[in-house]
Amino acid sequence: MIITVEENAEPNRIDEILRNLSEIGIDAYVSEYLGKKVIVIDKSMEKTVMERLSLMDGVERIIPIPYQFKLVSRLFKPENTIIKISDLIEIGNEPLFIIAGPCSVENREMMLHTARHVRAEGASALRGGAFKPRTSPYSFQGLGEEGLEILAEARSETGLPVVTEAMSIEQFDLVEKYADIVQIGARNMQNFPLLKRAARSRKPILLKRGLSATITEWLLSAEYIVSGGNPNVILCERGIRTFEQSTRNTLDLAAVALAKKESHLPVIVDPSHATGIRALVKPMAKAAVAAGSDGLIVEVHPDPNKALSDGPQSLTLDDFAQLMREIESIAKAVGRCLSRW
Amino acid sequence: MIITVEENAEPNRIDEILRNLSEIGIDAYVSEYLGKKVIVIDKSMEKTVMERLSLMDGVERIIPIPYQFKLVSRLFKPENTIIKISDLIEIGNEPLFIIAGPCSVENREMMLHTARHVRAEGASALRGGAFKPRTSPYSFQGLGEEGLEILAEARSETGLPVVTEAMSIEQFDLVEKYADIVQIGARNMQNFPLLKRAARSRKPILLKRGLSATITEWLLSAEYIVSGGNPNVILCERGIRTFEQSTRNTLDLAAVALAKKESHLPVIVDPSHATGIRALVKPMAKAAVAAGSDGLIVEVHPDPNKALSDGPQSLTLDDFAQLMREIESIAKAVGRCLSRW
Amino acid sequence: MIITVEENAEPNRIDEILRNLSEIGIDAYVSEYLGKKVIVIDKSMEKTVMERLSLMDGVERIIPIPYQFKLVSRLFKPENTIIKISDLIEIGNEPLFIIAGPCSVENREMMLHTARHVRAEGASALRGGAFKPRTSPYSFQGLGEEGLEILAEARSETGLPVVTEAMSIEQFDLVEKYADIVQIGARNMQNFPLLKRAARSRKPILLKRGLSATITEWLLSAEYIVSGGNPNVILCERGIRTFEQSTRNTLDLAAVALAKKESHLPVIVDPSHATGIRALVKPMAKAAVAAGSDGLIVEVHPDPNKALSDGPQSLTLDDFAQLMREIESIAKAVGRCLSRW
Amino acid sequence: MIITVEENAEPNRIDEILRNLSEIGIDAYVSEYLGKKVIVIDKSMEKTVMERLSLMDGVERIIPIPYQFKLVSRLFKPENTIIKISDLIEIGNEPLFIIAGPCSVENREMMLHTARHVRAEGASALRGGAFKPRTSPYSFQGLGEEGLEILAEARSETGLPVVTEAMSIEQFDLVEKYADIVQIGARNMQNFPLLKRAARSRKPILLKRGLSATITEWLLSAEYIVSGGNPNVILCERGIRTFEQSTRNTLDLAAVALAKKESHLPVIVDPSHATGIRALVKPMAKAAVAAGSDGLIVEVHPDPNKALSDGPQSLTLDDFAQLMREIESIAKAVGRCLSRW
Repeated sequence: MIITVEENAEPNRIDEILRNLSEIGIDAYVSEYLGKKVIVIDKSMEKTVMERLSLMDGVERIIPIPYQFKLVSRLFKPENTIIKISDLIEIGNEPLFIIAGPCSVENREMMLHTARHVRAEGASALRGGAFKPRTSPYSFQGLGEEGLEILAEARSETGLPVVTEAMSIEQFDLVEKYADIVQIGARNMQNFPLLKRAARSRKPILLKRGLSATITEWLLSAEYIVSGGNPNVILCERGIRTFEQSTRNTLDLAAVALAKKESHLPVIVDPSHATGIRALVKPMAKAAVAAGSDGLIVEVHPDPNKALSDGPQSLTLDDFAQLMREIESIAKAVGRCLSRW
Repeated sequence: MIITVEENAEPNRIDEILRNLSEIGIDAYVSEYLGKKVIVIDKSMEKTVMERLSLMDGVERIIPIPYQFKLVSRLFKPENTIIKISDLIEIGNEPLFIIAGPCSVENREMMLHTARHVRAEGASALRGGAFKPRTSPYSFQGLGEEGLEILAEARSETGLPVVTEAMSIEQFDLVEKYADIVQIGARNMQNFPLLKRAARSRKPILLKRGLSATITEWLLSAEYIVSGGNPNVILCERGIRTFEQSTRNTLDLAAVALAKKESHLPVIVDPSHATGIRALVKPMAKAAVAAGSDGLIVEVHPDPNKALSDGPQSLTLDDFAQLMREIESIAKAVGRCLSRW
Repeated sequence: MIITVEENAEPNRIDEILRNLSEIGIDAYVSEYLGKKVIVIDKSMEKTVMERLSLMDGVERIIPIPYQFKLVSRLFKPENTIIKISDLIEIGNEPLFIIAGPCSVENREMMLHTARHVRAEGASALRGGAFKPRTSPYSFQGLGEEGLEILAEARSETGLPVVTEAMSIEQFDLVEKYADIVQIGARNMQNFPLLKRAARSRKPILLKRGLSATITEWLLSAEYIVSGGNPNVILCERGIRTFEQSTRNTLDLAAVALAKKESHLPVIVDPSHATGIRALVKPMAKAAVAAGSDGLIVEVHPDPNKALSDGPQSLTLDDFAQLMREIESIAKAVGRCLSRW
Repeated sequence: MIITVEENAEPNRIDEILRNLSEIGIDAYVSEYLGKKVIVIDKSMEKTVMERLSLMDGVERIIPIPYQFKLVSRLFKPENTIIKISDLIEIGNEPLFIIAGPCSVENREMMLHTARHVRAEGASALRGGAFKPRTSPYSFQGLGEEGLEILAEARSETGLPVVTEAMSIEQFDLVEKYADIVQIGARNMQNFPLLKRAARSRKPILLKRGLSATITEWLLSAEYIVSGGNPNVILCERGIRTFEQSTRNTLDLAAVALAKKESHLPVIVDPSHATGIRALVKPMAKAAVAAGSDGLIVEVHPDPNKALSDGPQSLTLDDFAQLMREIESIAKAVGRCLSRW
């Protein structure tokens, strides 16, 4: 349940409401959503109590929400959340938000070359990892801040907003300075201190679904960020871990449709990590758009065979150009379009 | 590896080839594919042995196939298999093959009513279970032969080919007489005696993927049918079992793209069982078509709230009409169309 | 809910009870359990209805069972079911029931050799597949009836009861003549026509849990057999399919403890298929006994490297001897023992 | 592959070896294990290259390791790692290491009460969360430093070493000051910055397996800690996420046996989180010990019904006393014992 507070309510009204709730043994959590105070209650309540509450001074509206997630629910906010990334680029609106780029920032040349190409083909943003989560300590761990500087240069040259990952609070402090969107990766979807740090940021957060996270858990991780003060969360389905091993993960497109149905947040799809196989990226990208995804995040590399990470699932520059053409006709069929810039 | 035998080879040539293989300790399996004798070998072979074999009388071609499945592989047959269902209806060709109807045949009225409606909206075939696999012995088990008779009547009236399930060899003998396509359900994907019975049938087989079957196992079950003499297998992805419980199963559309890539058999998708949620059937149906599916099998019921099984995932007649309109635009975007009849 | 009927009730009492239930829209299923008529109702009921029912002539007891499975529930029958296999051998009692033998019956010599050995080491029964469920049509499919004859000979010589699998109704008719316990394998746990056939048999049934079957589904498959007239079902946990690939399956020992808690049926464990790795069979066998398993089914082969199937998971004869010694001390620690014969 | 360096080798020998490797394009990682320099190479190498390397000055031994994990492998160190926790307590040796206590530190009274009780029953260490990873932002998040102080007091009074979790580098800095063993939870098993921080600690690390982590990934996370300088890692299996929902997770005891076989690190089991059901904790604890586990971590609460978290899976004080008695007889059967203090 969410109680929204009247805008001109006196400050002590909230305290009074909380005191009343406390007296009947109900914990409440005060948050702010788009400048408005809201009181979140994670408990069901008797009807008579609700009626009494609704009559209290300062109470604007009481919204029953039978899910664990509250502020990210469509019951709280029926209309889609649209996030402005730059003057020209939004996500959640009619144009699809297509993020493209290599898995890792490997060096300046490849990054700029890739950025120019994906910009020319109509991408909405640039991806590239500076801090890489790697299963083995002996694998390439990313260029760190040097990588962030290269991304910033690519943005200067192409105008593309930059999406890159942070894996800890320290990295977040740094990444936030460079990135337009900060990614929280699948392995950190339930890194709660990191979610709380993201909640205090003014940058939009790309929140990937964990390898074995339920849709409810995914939305609850988004709730951590939104209830902590940052309303701009982009959900990203990137495949879940199942018994099937012929693809890297199992892309769960029903999760996209369900998240769109139950939440007002934008949802995008990562067909590269979901499949791990170049030949499947295009069909899955098209399926994602048909399923209602608000965008894609796709790995593109000028020479995938030489990639320091994720080569087998990276598209070549030509593949990406073709993907954009094929996506366009699917987009039209579902009332969407590519970015217009 | 598959050895194809020259059409005019003398009958004893095959025996000779087998004798040669046997002498070097290699088991072989003789089959027939579209009237042509083929010898299947499930073992790798040294290059010199292959060269020697290729020079033997009667040997037409040696096709190395590094998969466990052989005859269903695209390496054996690069072009798509197109299955003729009736004079007007094929599957695997440009028009999508859309099967619609209730989960169970419940009675004559509802079946005929549904059949007329889905025919009018452009469905390619009619579904309806006469023998129902039910988790509990206390659930409705289907009408049996009475259900088959009702299906036959619906076909007479509408011209729609009929798809229905058999769960045992006995049921197969009966179902085969009534159905145009015999379904082998997810729970029977590895019912090998049933697969061997299906192999001896002249009716096309709709082979659903098992709840936890890998793509390779699914293709090997198809291989049982094809190597046993029935080339007409339609693969059907219907969702796999994973940790995610907010949908009935997890629809694995990458499996559709991968099966289409590795096999020449047609592949369709069941968005009803895959999701278990009416509101997700349409987006998943569209995603399936965008991913390259050759068709759909969709549960439609005139009054889902009163359905004896699977009500929550059944489309109403109106839902189905709308689905067909929405599918059409996606179909066009990927170079497909709806059935033209 | 189960209604037990008084033993000396007049035959028409049941019809009357059913008529009463039918009038208030409640379906009921009449079954017989150990010679006693029972009426099974798969629906919740208002308290007043229950009270009225309890006063009807012929009604002995009404047992509310809030699970889908009824007759196999401990709420219906609190005490353990003990199944007599031969004059000397029972399952479900204090002595553990240890089934040992090769995956497949390969030939007479190896079968007799293995049987003598496992008998000498204290095994309770002999396993060996005559009809083999194989993923590929090109793999060894078993010796069929010849294999059954060899098993019967091994029994004659050693006195060991024989456990072997049937995959279809036809095979069941044949296997039933030879076997002391008929196995229904994991892939057929939801082969409902086969379960119904097993229900009509007088032989005990070893029901393996399906690769991705929930515990409830497993118990419901047992319910098919018990409600159909055969009370002698032995449940067998053999590992489930998960994302983990370093073992063949994931042994779910909590399922054993939970099945023992919720059902009165005996439960045994197959550590060979569960792990697929010889070195893990012994620790998992011991863990199974510690968890409360009533027995084990273990693959043993005189020369695992030459086995036609499942070699890597088969114990050698020496391994088995050592397993029995190690099991014995665990058995004592949990108040069990090895078979005394 | 690991190259161990002679103890008295001149410092520049390592540089020379690295230079040689670099010249042939091989990356190497220098680490220290128990005071000895080691060079880790995550790549296979030709035999001739290995022979040449083995002749270089300073090279003591070359150990080929065909796994991704190296220093934690038994091929590197065949004997069990035994970790000294206090003067009286070790883990990995004959006595089982039993950690007991509540899920969360809730208040001083309950913590001291529980600590005294589990100490009296023979527990080896005390658990209790001060920082709690909670799926919902609206759930109790733990007492923070106040909780750590209470744990320290419980240690002072009982002598029990304290195990508690850190979820971020900042929390680690704090927890390290209070705890005897720092826990990295399942959700952080691949929080690589946190693993790197743990590698720089002198406290032993309890590394829980991730919800959907493979055994190899789990060992690679341990490798992060060991290769970064901290050899004292305790692995903890706590159940994995599967389709089965009647238990909270699926306890994977084969993973315990396999981890013990492939790694020299101690492995313990958490039957509380693995099952989520009080009645299953005891059978699974016994099964764990039978499977070769070096210990247990068990949730115990004086009044589980009032627990702020994980009540349904917590043992009462009496349950725990009984568990210890039952464990003892299993321990003896596998050549182990309870802590002797």
